[in-house]
Amino acid sequence: MSQKNKMKRTAVTPRRDEDYPKWYQSVIKAADLAENSPSRGCMVIKPWGYGIWESIQRDLDRRIKETGHENAYFPLFIPLSFLEKEAEHVEGFAKECAVVTHHRLEERDGRLIPTGKLDEPLIVRPTSETIIGDAFSKWVQSYRDLPLLINQWANVVRWEMRPRLFLRTAEFLWQEGHTVHATEKEAIEEVFQALYFYRDHIQDVLAVPTILGEKTPGERFPGAVSTYCLESMMQDRKALQAGTSHYLGKKFAKASNIRFLNSDGELEYAYTTSWGVSTRLIGALIMTHGDDDGLRVPPRAAPKQVVILPIIPRRGSKEEIFEYADEIASNLRKLTYYRDPLVVHVDKRDIRGGEKNWQWIKKGIPVRIEVGPRDMEKNSVALYRRDQGHKEKIFLERTALSGRIGSILDEIQQNYFDQAKKLLDENIRTDIDNFDDFKAYFTPKNPKKPEIHGGFVRAKWCGDEAATDSLLADLKVTIRSLPLDQKEIVGGKCVITGRKATQEALFAKAY
Amino acid sequence: MSQKNKMKRTAVTPRRDEDYPKWYQSVIKAADLAENSPSRGCMVIKPWGYGIWESIQRDLDRRIKETGHENAYFPLFIPLSFLEKEAEHVEGFAKECAVVTHHRLEERDGRLIPTGKLDEPLIVRPTSETIIGDAFSKWVQSYRDLPLLINQWANVVRWEMRPRLFLRTAEFLWQEGHTVHATEKEAIEEVFQALYFYRDHIQDVLAVPTILGEKTPGERFPGAVSTYCLESMMQDRKALQAGTSHYLGKKFAKASNIRFLNSDGELEYAYTTSWGVSTRLIGALIMTHGDDDGLRVPPRAAPKQVVILPIIPRRGSKEEIFEYADEIASNLRKLTYYRDPLVVHVDKRDIRGGEKNWQWIKKGIPVRIEVGPRDMEKNSVALYRRDQGHKEKIFLERTALSGRIGSILDEIQQNYFDQAKKLLDENIRTDIDNFDDFKAYFTPKNPKKPEIHGGFVRAKWCGDEAATDSLLADLKVTIRSLPLDQKEIVGGKCVITGRKATQEALFAKAY
Repeated sequence: MSQKNKMKRTAVTPRRDEDYPKWYQSVIKAADLAENSPSRGCMVIKPWGYGIWESIQRDLDRRIKETGHENAYFPLFIPLSFLEKEAEHVEGFAKECAVVTHHRLEERDGRLIPTGKLDEPLIVRPTSETIIGDAFSKWVQSYRDLPLLINQWANVVRWEMRPRLFLRTAEFLWQEGHTVHATEKEAIEEVFQALYFYRDHIQDVLAVPTILGEKTPGERFPGAVSTYCLESMMQDRKALQAGTSHYLGKKFAKASNIRFLNSDGELEYAYTTSWGVSTRLIGALIMTHGDDDGLRVPPRAAPKQVVILPIIPRRGSKEEIFEYADEIASNLRKLTYYRDPLVVHVDKRDIRGGEKNWQWIKKGIPVRIEVGPRDMEKNSVALYRRDQGHKEKIFLERTALSGRIGSILDEIQQNYFDQAKKLLDENIRTDIDNFDDFKAYFTPKNPKKPEIHGGFVRAKWCGDEAATDSLLADLKVTIRSLPLDQKEIVGGKCVITGRKATQEALFAKAY
Repeated sequence: MSQKNKMKRTAVTPRRDEDYPKWYQSVIKAADLAENSPSRGCMVIKPWGYGIWESIQRDLDRRIKETGHENAYFPLFIPLSFLEKEAEHVEGFAKECAVVTHHRLEERDGRLIPTGKLDEPLIVRPTSETIIGDAFSKWVQSYRDLPLLINQWANVVRWEMRPRLFLRTAEFLWQEGHTVHATEKEAIEEVFQALYFYRDHIQDVLAVPTILGEKTPGERFPGAVSTYCLESMMQDRKALQAGTSHYLGKKFAKASNIRFLNSDGELEYAYTTSWGVSTRLIGALIMTHGDDDGLRVPPRAAPKQVVILPIIPRRGSKEEIFEYADEIASNLRKLTYYRDPLVVHVDKRDIRGGEKNWQWIKKGIPVRIEVGPRDMEKNSVALYRRDQGHKEKIFLERTALSGRIGSILDEIQQNYFDQAKKLLDENIRTDIDNFDDFKAYFTPKNPKKPEIHGGFVRAKWCGDEAATDSLLADLKVTIRSLPLDQKEIVGGKCVITGRKATQEALFAKAY
């Protein structure tokens, strides 16, 4: 252990710079967000983790509804024959499907075994294009029924051989938008509308900056005509895909027979889209904002913005202090913070004050307020911000608290975003124009010790995906996207193959 | 067809008095609530139906959180060995389990077949006591960790051979509360707390009166020590169980090894509870409030409270009318109705006015507001209430609308409840004291024609469940519950067996 390690103790070990993947697991445990379950690859999302998902749902659901979509719910099970309707689609998901084959259990020789074999196996939905498409084929008759704008909040299952909490789990929670349109133009507008409200949500609530782009053909959603995505940079400078929006053309409409009578009375296939984000966003939040003392939750994504910690020095004053704390809490609860009531918790648990304080630091609650007998006497409070040193107090008159809390929370939210944006800006290279420099950038200096290295490279590219993939395989770097804000390419060579460049691409190692 | 049938045309056929079960299916279709899916026994919940579920979730989630519970999420899949941990529990669910046996699909001879056989089959959760119990056994160490108060919103699967939309479907949506306590007293208080907030929710939001009681031993949740329930009366006078709350004693704690160090430092098993309501509540709402013209949704349960229908007599004035309608809508949207913003929809679809109007009547939106050129001139609106005749207009000054709408909605809400309460009060018999009268009450007069008959009987009972069940089998009547507000039994005989009565029971035919 180095001198430096000895000097600074952190609440989470290992530190990010020591072993980033292990740090990620430790933060999840320290913040009590989730845990592995005995159902292989499935996770248990604990209250603090689920609370973040509820914040995501609340904000995103509003954006989805404000743009004219309605929620509905479709079956968990998809008949095998449905999945087969779109050839690329089934190929993309066949290797990771949970298959239901029986519908009861019977005891034989003292053991329960599956019986009641189904005529046709059912697939636990990995995504719902085919089962929703079947419903849409009945709902859509005429151009008057279009656009059809539907969203579903649901669980989906994609079997994972190497699960990682929030990032890759066999079961995860998500929303999936599915829409039908009369024209290609409208469908493509819809695809971008979703992409933009994802960007706004991820930026404004999760405080995570993203880069918008189109996926290369090899990375498209199975069966899509084009896939657009949002890429974000984690603190180890690897990329995480935060959401996707797919233009499906007429391909799924043909597979599911979604046709409509147009205004000329002709029957034609419709254009469809789909788009989704998942509990993976919580992984992005952790890896963007966590520090060596645990999680830091942006206030707008936090299940609770403020915790009040009563300090009880001797038994006698407990009730009085609790009352003081409750009064402060109930005043704060009258406030609105970012379109919802401010959530304030008074932690009256009978555990040591230091332990309690550190639990909340590790959970990353934005603001901690300590109230003890001396604060009560002075009619004040001591406020601690998670974006500042854990001992940096702000003394406030109790009466001033309600007026200040909103701007304090806004500052924390902005600070987290600014820090994440700075990391992204400092670690995105736009000046690399040859493969040697490219390789050097993505190669760790000490191959024996894991270290944080590399970042994003935005560079000219020839468009040959197969050649690029094979040259990049050893580096474990991939094309993340073709950024939407393409600069015009005048001359220049592909950073990978050295051939004539036709477009700009974003390269990174990725989750 | 009788003279009467010819005279009154209804939007839904058959009428309730003609064929209640078919009427139920017709209302669901007419109100566009849900439909059967190609995944056998699973339903598609369409936007208007799902919107009602969202209203239920919003209100109930608030009640669950206000009583100190937190939401979390547990795996969809339960290892077979977990289900086996509680003997009665597995016996209760074995016959209706969807079983996952494989985790991938492979092509063989041009057909996709399940491969990747699992070592241990996984059960799609029919309920989550065992998988949640496993997590709780790790979360609970000391009395300081108690009570543990958790709720989950999720989908569950119980294979149904004869599915009926909302009432019995293979997959349904629900919430399931799961709690752990240090003492029996606290656990039982929790069981009743849940029962009471269910009663309040179902009464105040769904406008459905319920009777609270305890289930007889044979009707308990598989593995429970005691099960409490809420029974409601549908318009065909049959009972529907609207929710249940279970006291599990130490049985599931022993099965899952949930133990805690008590304040004396001794390790002991904890007491657990579980409680749930599901999308079945939507079935209760339909069968309580629907009429022969479709659904009637109580305002507090409605996805939208008000629809504005612009009347366009000639092409020229369309934009002006739309603007007038939008202005009215945006003023109304500033109002709060029952703790949330009032939801107002302006229906600008290009379809015939009469058809549009009837679609909303069939959906049961509480208030329709028509605005046409003459209303615009007079700065007024014409308002229609779903609890009154479809042509009964209320003319209101536009400026008076915001002041009146809240009380109009409250009146509708109250009317629906009063009507349901009247039906219950008029069809619950407390004076039947012998089996002959009992049989006559539950026997239709014309055995060839289905008719609405019977109701609830509240009567003295001997407590012999086996004898009662066998005497009641032909009648298809069951004991719904032992009502909580038991009257003291002084003498008297059991209405079924004629033996000495020990308690009061509630009898009915049931869904």
